[in-house]
Amino acid sequence: MPFADILKDVVHGTDGAVGALVVGVDGIPVEEYALTNDLDLQSMTVEYATLLKEIEKGSQSAQLGSTKEVTVMADKALVMLRRLTDEYFMVLIIKPDGNFGKGRFLLRMSVPKLLKEF
Amino acid sequence: MPFADILKDVVHGTDGAVGALVVGVDGIPVEEYALTNDLDLQSMTVEYATLLKEIEKGSQSAQLGSTKEVTVMADKALVMLRRLTDEYFMVLIIKPDGNFGKGRFLLRMSVPKLLKEF
Repeated sequence: MPFADILKDVVHGTDGAVGALVVGVDGIPVEEYALTNDLDLQSMTVEYATLLKEIEKGSQSAQLGSTKEVTVMADKALVMLRRLTDEYFMVLIIKPDGNFGKGRFLLRMSVPKLLKEF
Repeated sequence: MPFADILKDVVHGTDGAVGALVVGVDGIPVEEYALTNDLDLQSMTVEYATLLKEIEKGSQSAQLGSTKEVTVMADKALVMLRRLTDEYFMVLIIKPDGNFGKGRFLLRMSVPKLLKEF
């Protein structure tokens, strides 16, 4: 299943989801699927890629082991980041009134599907 | 209600919680309550304080507004950070098999109680 289809399924299966991406840890997106042009996905991914590296450093030095998932709840959106490999991660963006639990479930379910394509 | 008592209530009310803290954005803890000495809370807070600043920058530049809550799921622990004021935030650390939902609920409920003490 191509990346785009997997991302599309996650976004359409989650109430309030506005977009999903597969991104390299360098912040360069591999694939993205968005329902709206409101969000600047490009600049968002660069910012959050840096973030994931910082979080990884934080978890390691706090001896918590490797980071699997990060959720950021901001005023205008909820951003979920899930690690795929050492080099890539997946991002799901949901509106504050969206179905967070369903999004997280579908995000996790899509990991093995995405990994098959690597 | 003193900070220490509020933190204690959150930790004891959450299955699998190991500690909770009130921390300044400079990483200096105001109060901490821990059930175990396994975790290096001190170094953890410094790392995560830096993180919170980075996340705030990320959310702002991605035009998502201010960050209210961040959850980091690592191999050995789940760390929840909740903003209290511009200067302070609260941290709750839960074991991977702990009750994440209950922890988040108690964390949110404790915010107004903590704010009364500021």
